[in-house]
Amino acid sequence: MSAQTKYVLDETHIPKAWYNLVADLPSPPPPVLHPGTHQPVGPDDLAPLFPMTLIAQEVTAEREVEIPEPVREVYRLWRPSPLYRARRLERELDTPAKIYYKYEGVSPAGSHKPNTAVPQAFYNQQAGIQRIATETGAGQWGSSLSFAGSLFGLEIDVFMVRVSYNQKPYRRALMESYGARCVPSPSEFTHAGRAILAKDPFHSGSLGIAISEAVEVAAQRDDTNYALGSVLNHVLLHQTVVGLESIEQMAMAGDDPDILIGCTGGGSNFGGLVFPYLGMQLRGGKKRRVIAVEPSACPSLTRGQYAYDFGDTAHLTPLTKMHTLGSAFTPPGFHAGGLRYHGMAPLVSHVKELGLIEARAYQQRACFEAGVIFARSEGIIPAPEANHAVRAAIDEALHAKVNGHSPVILFNLCGHGHFDMQAYIDFHAGKLVDQEYDETELAMALAALPSVSA
Amino acid sequence: MSAQTKYVLDETHIPKAWYNLVADLPSPPPPVLHPGTHQPVGPDDLAPLFPMTLIAQEVTAEREVEIPEPVREVYRLWRPSPLYRARRLERELDTPAKIYYKYEGVSPAGSHKPNTAVPQAFYNQQAGIQRIATETGAGQWGSSLSFAGSLFGLEIDVFMVRVSYNQKPYRRALMESYGARCVPSPSEFTHAGRAILAKDPFHSGSLGIAISEAVEVAAQRDDTNYALGSVLNHVLLHQTVVGLESIEQMAMAGDDPDILIGCTGGGSNFGGLVFPYLGMQLRGGKKRRVIAVEPSACPSLTRGQYAYDFGDTAHLTPLTKMHTLGSAFTPPGFHAGGLRYHGMAPLVSHVKELGLIEARAYQQRACFEAGVIFARSEGIIPAPEANHAVRAAIDEALHAKVNGHSPVILFNLCGHGHFDMQAYIDFHAGKLVDQEYDETELAMALAALPSVSA
Repeated sequence: MSAQTKYVLDETHIPKAWYNLVADLPSPPPPVLHPGTHQPVGPDDLAPLFPMTLIAQEVTAEREVEIPEPVREVYRLWRPSPLYRARRLERELDTPAKIYYKYEGVSPAGSHKPNTAVPQAFYNQQAGIQRIATETGAGQWGSSLSFAGSLFGLEIDVFMVRVSYNQKPYRRALMESYGARCVPSPSEFTHAGRAILAKDPFHSGSLGIAISEAVEVAAQRDDTNYALGSVLNHVLLHQTVVGLESIEQMAMAGDDPDILIGCTGGGSNFGGLVFPYLGMQLRGGKKRRVIAVEPSACPSLTRGQYAYDFGDTAHLTPLTKMHTLGSAFTPPGFHAGGLRYHGMAPLVSHVKELGLIEARAYQQRACFEAGVIFARSEGIIPAPEANHAVRAAIDEALHAKVNGHSPVILFNLCGHGHFDMQAYIDFHAGKLVDQEYDETELAMALAALPSVSA
Repeated sequence: MSAQTKYVLDETHIPKAWYNLVADLPSPPPPVLHPGTHQPVGPDDLAPLFPMTLIAQEVTAEREVEIPEPVREVYRLWRPSPLYRARRLERELDTPAKIYYKYEGVSPAGSHKPNTAVPQAFYNQQAGIQRIATETGAGQWGSSLSFAGSLFGLEIDVFMVRVSYNQKPYRRALMESYGARCVPSPSEFTHAGRAILAKDPFHSGSLGIAISEAVEVAAQRDDTNYALGSVLNHVLLHQTVVGLESIEQMAMAGDDPDILIGCTGGGSNFGGLVFPYLGMQLRGGKKRRVIAVEPSACPSLTRGQYAYDFGDTAHLTPLTKMHTLGSAFTPPGFHAGGLRYHGMAPLVSHVKELGLIEARAYQQRACFEAGVIFARSEGIIPAPEANHAVRAAIDEALHAKVNGHSPVILFNLCGHGHFDMQAYIDFHAGKLVDQEYDETELAMALAALPSVSA
């Protein structure tokens, strides 16, 4: 038994290829449909938004997709990320479980998001694109793409959900430090934004609206593309570096996880950790419990419908089959902004339907309690999103104590909370309250799902 | 020639002993004097504030001081810290110089400060102490000691300079997340604080005042000690893990630095990086240029007097011989709060007098310009303090280009700027202006230096 705390790899261990789960699945996920014709989209439908390399990655069935050397060169700035044994947390919980976590907060932007921002920026630059428009909620994706853009000489325009834009000036300053432009959404720069401001000049915005604005800008200009920080197959593909490194690091530790845990908003940090493990299982390997953790206030996997839906509010995106609360659903303004999205990655939804993963939802106070326990034992203050994974890991460790089991738990600590301290201030002041979505609004949003006969 | 970007070591390479420069100096630094008698202080004089182990470390002439295993165990959470070759920055500057940096921002509190907070908390816990009182300016030290206290079950009381307390609520939230208590200074809790508030109820505070408050609390209670985050010999001793690891990592890189650079406030991150290198030089090794970089608005090394002075405003501390602007000097409120101290570590002052190091001062706008160049090429957004070292490293690299030299530069990137983004907001908005100290105030503060015949 190793007594190490931290498992570090040198940069020669950065994966040379991303892993594509589709290659090992018993059935592929349902096709993406054109919003007008309801027919499967082809590459040409997506070409106004994405470079062809990413479109090809979106639909490939190859098991391995080579990581270009310029991307690996940037990955070296923080990858391989460390994997920790949470010995102090185990002691604090007095649990027979072993708890490991992969820590993605070491990236320059502080989360797993640069894992995909960097290749997306690279492929766009290779395709001769000058500018990328994108949306951001809490700001983690926007700052990650801004970082990646600064490295590849791309202009980055970020539409930031207005409520976050006002609440998180530090995230905005980070984007501007990387040279990006960041505007509050809804904005006056797009038809979609102006239409909403005409009805409500003080609209606080949503991810669905910000996506509409970014997609509109990208579709209009030949030199401009769009980039998404989660949900899509190619995004989850890029995140598999997390799981691939973890497999090697867990082998260094001499342990093999029984339980894998990740928080889910769009699904990318979760997929990044668990897909390589699911692949091994599908190829005849060990069966593990795989737990997706989402907020009770935006519970797409546990309360949504598995149906075709739009990714945005203005219905500019293609239709994807996913667990959705309906594109008209507006989640309450809880603190884990990165988990505040009506839909789930089609690939995560598909493996849920295949029975390969389980899902659970937590209220935010329980998650922040877990985050503070974690900070006081492991030192790292987790992002509000990551606190959902921490809560589930702690609960599994406490169950193990009751049941007399000693499972090996591995969770993805997908980012730090340095730019989210207002949430901790509210928590310490007793002002952070649990939030429920509106049942009537959910029913109406689900009733408004597009009717697709596929 | 290695083509690596990041030099990582596994945790077996965490140093087993700190390095004590005093063992290799041609003469020891002048003794610390009792503020009343002006006689050298003995251990008993310091016993109300510090545990005996730290008092012994303060005066030891041993070359190596063993790092206790429980301290090394905590160091494993982030140490060894990475050392980077700044290839992208070199390309951006188009310089023949090689630029390396040691990155201490990977610690839980985001700077080098936990390197000494952890052993200080450990030794206090071993001595049966329940509580530590301390001061903090920008909050990096306060959050580091709070982190360390949470690991060793100590109560931590932080007196935070009021202007920072109000400007940096996120740092405060971090301390509270670790379970510490943080109050604005001057406070009603001490004689020193009440005396100042009686004259000016809206006094914005200073490090010198906050030190007075913390020392007063510690001196009054048997279960409470005091801890300082810089200046003292034992603090600089603990920071030598930075330089010791760097020596090993530079060997991995196949390069040997010609120029070493660190920013200096109290002197601890600078001493931590350069003392092990100076030791090699003093034992007959290579001579390197060693550059201490300080803010023009608080230039103790470049404009201060080398004289005995108090460490605090209320004159509760012993007298130490150091480069000082006078304990009555109040530096202007520039953004690098960690460099806003009237004095310099006696050991750094001593090596400056011995001609072993050089010093220079920069205005803050030039430093933030350097920080943004760095962020856009290397991804990491530096702390305002660290920007001073970045500026000097960039300037040396640009000089090299003009002079046709290709020196190997190593600087200490002592922390990230995640909790200092307001400074970047001001910089981007053109509101960050250079600041000058008041020449008359400096003259008066120097005239008020205590008269010591030693």
